[in-house]
Amino acid sequence: MLSFTRRLLGAPLRRGQSDAATLPSIEALPILSSDALSSVAYATEAALGVLILAGSRALELSLPITGAIVLLIGIVVLSYRQTIEAYPQGGGSYVVARENLGTGPSLVAAAALLVDYTLTAAVSLMAGTQALSSLLPGLLPYETPIALLLLVLVGWANLRGVREAGRAFAIPTYAFVVMVALLALFGLQNLVFAHGFTPDPPPLVQAMEPLGLFLILRAFSSGCSAMTGIEAIANGVKVFRAPAAQRAQRTMLVMGAMLALMFLAVSGLGWLYGVAPTPDRTVLAQIGIRVFGAGSPLFWALQITTLLILALAANTAFAGFPRLAAMLAQDRFLPRQMAWIGDRLVFQNGIGVLLLAAGGVILICRGDTTVAVNLYALGVFTAFTLSQAGMVVRWWRLRGPGWIGRLLMNALGSFTTFVVLLVIVVSKFDEGAWTVVIAIPLLVLLLQRIRHRYDVVYRAIALKPGDDLSLRLPQRRDPVGNTSLVWVPSWSRPTLEALRYATTVSDRVVAVWVCSEDEDPAAIQAHWTRTVGEPPGLELRLLESPYASLMDPFVDFVAEEEQRHPDQTFTIVMPMGIPRYRFDNLLLNQRGVNMRRCLDARRNRVFTLVRYYLPA
Amino acid sequence: MLSFTRRLLGAPLRRGQSDAATLPSIEALPILSSDALSSVAYATEAALGVLILAGSRALELSLPITGAIVLLIGIVVLSYRQTIEAYPQGGGSYVVARENLGTGPSLVAAAALLVDYTLTAAVSLMAGTQALSSLLPGLLPYETPIALLLLVLVGWANLRGVREAGRAFAIPTYAFVVMVALLALFGLQNLVFAHGFTPDPPPLVQAMEPLGLFLILRAFSSGCSAMTGIEAIANGVKVFRAPAAQRAQRTMLVMGAMLALMFLAVSGLGWLYGVAPTPDRTVLAQIGIRVFGAGSPLFWALQITTLLILALAANTAFAGFPRLAAMLAQDRFLPRQMAWIGDRLVFQNGIGVLLLAAGGVILICRGDTTVAVNLYALGVFTAFTLSQAGMVVRWWRLRGPGWIGRLLMNALGSFTTFVVLLVIVVSKFDEGAWTVVIAIPLLVLLLQRIRHRYDVVYRAIALKPGDDLSLRLPQRRDPVGNTSLVWVPSWSRPTLEALRYATTVSDRVVAVWVCSEDEDPAAIQAHWTRTVGEPPGLELRLLESPYASLMDPFVDFVAEEEQRHPDQTFTIVMPMGIPRYRFDNLLLNQRGVNMRRCLDARRNRVFTLVRYYLPA
Repeated sequence: MLSFTRRLLGAPLRRGQSDAATLPSIEALPILSSDALSSVAYATEAALGVLILAGSRALELSLPITGAIVLLIGIVVLSYRQTIEAYPQGGGSYVVARENLGTGPSLVAAAALLVDYTLTAAVSLMAGTQALSSLLPGLLPYETPIALLLLVLVGWANLRGVREAGRAFAIPTYAFVVMVALLALFGLQNLVFAHGFTPDPPPLVQAMEPLGLFLILRAFSSGCSAMTGIEAIANGVKVFRAPAAQRAQRTMLVMGAMLALMFLAVSGLGWLYGVAPTPDRTVLAQIGIRVFGAGSPLFWALQITTLLILALAANTAFAGFPRLAAMLAQDRFLPRQMAWIGDRLVFQNGIGVLLLAAGGVILICRGDTTVAVNLYALGVFTAFTLSQAGMVVRWWRLRGPGWIGRLLMNALGSFTTFVVLLVIVVSKFDEGAWTVVIAIPLLVLLLQRIRHRYDVVYRAIALKPGDDLSLRLPQRRDPVGNTSLVWVPSWSRPTLEALRYATTVSDRVVAVWVCSEDEDPAAIQAHWTRTVGEPPGLELRLLESPYASLMDPFVDFVAEEEQRHPDQTFTIVMPMGIPRYRFDNLLLNQRGVNMRRCLDARRNRVFTLVRYYLPA
Repeated sequence: MLSFTRRLLGAPLRRGQSDAATLPSIEALPILSSDALSSVAYATEAALGVLILAGSRALELSLPITGAIVLLIGIVVLSYRQTIEAYPQGGGSYVVARENLGTGPSLVAAAALLVDYTLTAAVSLMAGTQALSSLLPGLLPYETPIALLLLVLVGWANLRGVREAGRAFAIPTYAFVVMVALLALFGLQNLVFAHGFTPDPPPLVQAMEPLGLFLILRAFSSGCSAMTGIEAIANGVKVFRAPAAQRAQRTMLVMGAMLALMFLAVSGLGWLYGVAPTPDRTVLAQIGIRVFGAGSPLFWALQITTLLILALAANTAFAGFPRLAAMLAQDRFLPRQMAWIGDRLVFQNGIGVLLLAAGGVILICRGDTTVAVNLYALGVFTAFTLSQAGMVVRWWRLRGPGWIGRLLMNALGSFTTFVVLLVIVVSKFDEGAWTVVIAIPLLVLLLQRIRHRYDVVYRAIALKPGDDLSLRLPQRRDPVGNTSLVWVPSWSRPTLEALRYATTVSDRVVAVWVCSEDEDPAAIQAHWTRTVGEPPGLELRLLESPYASLMDPFVDFVAEEEQRHPDQTFTIVMPMGIPRYRFDNLLLNQRGVNMRRCLDARRNRVFTLVRYYLPA
């Protein structure tokens, strides 16, 4: 088992081996922005998917909606630039909210982020799979298993400790940017020389709903999924070379501009070519086919780079979720195991939880990203709002030079994202947003509950001022006050070992044999007397059970003995044969495993396993 | 947890409480024959489902096929009558093959039976669900979850210890027999007075395959699923009143006659009314509609009794599988846990394994019984063949009065079932029979492997003649030769308890503290010196780790110490805070759980848990 794990995950790494060197902005940009930039692969599609409900004519509304979202991107980017300056160590929403707004809001932010990272991993991989099956329609029926396979691959890479650094990670992001740029250029050229400036009419689709404000707001909410991942640069300021904050701020602007341009390009081209969403082919792929031609290498390149950047975006979630979970665990809002660093210097428990959660989302969605994208935007805007509200409080408190302007900038960011949040909740409530509206408070309650239990438990085990701290080994002439009760399942070498150990640590040893239906107590007693005799301090006790369980008589006997000799310490000694092969564990010791569980439920104090290693 | 189990399964039963009284034949018959009789609910359908491939004209071949199978039923019933006489304690195929043919063939029979019981449970419940959805077509899309729900219900009833006895179990079987008899009578009346003697033509279906011998053999093989469960009476002779064997023999004949008549009636009516198999409605339900009318109470009664008898048939598997698994476990061919009797006096591990396996089959088949029915017949005929071959050997060996006739009868049974077995393997090989052809040898290998491991392991722990068996408590003035290494995760009450216990049982105690990255060794040492001082025999050892793991340094330290003092026994002492609530276990002690696993992998001998029960 151990060696299998090692082969799967690689040899342990030394501490400090993982401290990534800082990166030039040109490398940090792609690493931190794959999540944000990749969202243009699905955001336009998400908005169009709502608009189409009002018939094909409504599709042209995607242009003003895109415009509004680009404006929003501008506000949020400017607002986060200030967070970078204030938190050069990394200003995730949880940290900013914790420092400025207190525990409650910070837990809301944390819960929203946990939900969000899960959905990022799931949505990105489902969208990546769709990019692939738009290229190879034969894969359409296998979208869910392919997405799960990608998830396992990304998870495994993270368990091995693949870092976000490295140039290999920069290539897919830039390649995707280049492909979208080529798409825009070729599309524009087409527009000027061949296509003309009149947009194609989209395929005629019957309206299912009237085109009203509510529908437009729903389309806007869906399009807001373009904004996921914007905060990543603010979280990762540490990655930049000195002066890190300034470089990060500049990179943030560049990234915002790229995102806005790419989003505009995709929405514009979609409108121009009259693209309507279909279940079989993504909007981006449809545009790619119109611009590059269906079988052309450029179309292949577009789809492959889309898949790769989306896989990178999922990878971002695998970096963010465990890191946040570890922070929460250090603050005792999650079990401390979440903060354990494994041999490969990653938070492996967090990665495991994310794997399960994202896999569950993929299974539930079965390849349809619509609902997940809705939920996703909700979590993102919750985190945006709280993080920037925290910044407002911070400026108010510190009142450094120029604080009023900064406060206003963050207030604008917080206010607009809050309004969008409300829009999303209201317009998407029926379409799944209610699950997040329920899940986040539940998650917050769970986090608080865990913290409360930690407080109770740690208070209970803490040493109090009056506690007697004296420790000394007794004089060896005195009795040690220890009675060993040895469970004897059969008369064998492991049993003999256990009895022998018990005699070295106790004043009195009782060998306890619980007879099963087909054993003869008299014969067992006779055999004991013949082989062991009656050495002082050592006795055999035969128990019979009226029930099927062999545990209960033993457990009852222990309780009785403890009551009869309250001055003694009782050590339960359990012989255990350890076989060479793990498989054999299924055959041996099963009673012992069961008994430990039974004794756990009682208030017995000391439980000793004496192991006998089988010679072959 | 315990109390939840108790609520789910009921209070423990006393030993002996389960020994069922013997039953009159009139009650034993339905209990032991639900499996056999219920198979008429799907056997005709299975044969028709193959014949239809050669077009609707081929359906009339179901009559000669049914005739052949009825003949086969006669031979097998007569052959098994002799098994009843020879094995009044219950002559399952495994027992008969073990006694007469040796270990190899008996394991083949056992493997075939294990596969078979699993398929019985799955097929019966899927067929029962189909009976239900033939009545209520709205349930059609939910067949798989309904079948799983039924499985869980039957499994739960068996975990609670519902016995096969009781009149409640007799009613569904007789009710089903009555309903099929009514079906035959009404159908006959119809034939004479209204319908006339010319059969209806079945709906025209295009032939997909030519009608050849191979197709007919495949249809015959499918129809042979009618013979599943015939051996149940021979297994359960003990249930009958004295003279048990004679009563069982008579009951066997009655059951065989009932089965043959019912099977003939269903196949005959199906032909007469021109019924062809459809995916939405079972053949039996189609006949019921033609004879009784779609909404009539009699049709409802037919479908409900079909469901009930099929549920009973599944229940038979839940009795047979765990009993056989327990027998195999007693012979050490399966882990002995399979022979454990739980508080409710049932083999709960066997029931659990069957639940999982049958649930897996239902999930894989997704409501389509075709493949499973094929596999099913294969296992049944393997068991038939071996069991009767065993009887042949037995008669040859004993040569009692009239042995030649008996030998010939069993030889005929064994030979015909063997021929049928070959027919099934060959004709159904492509349709899933290959899985059983592979699964049975693999299962046999597994059973043999487990037995081999038991032999090795038991030999290893057995006491040998030269072993020193002396046991005595040492004189208390001598050092006991025990060093305790106490894992100190923090300076708290559980740690203090563990240290104090260690001082009572050892000459030397080492408190081992593995520093994590954020702990200061000097501060820890200073605090120790201040509070504990330097009592003789007690020392603090601070370890640091170059890797992330806190276990490895401790485990390495233990190994070093053991090497340095080979004369000492080393006891690893682990403090453990036991919280009031199970939930809190997630928060505490997780390092300890991990460490026990690490130490298991090394050859350390004694591991002691010192528990501190948290006051609140």
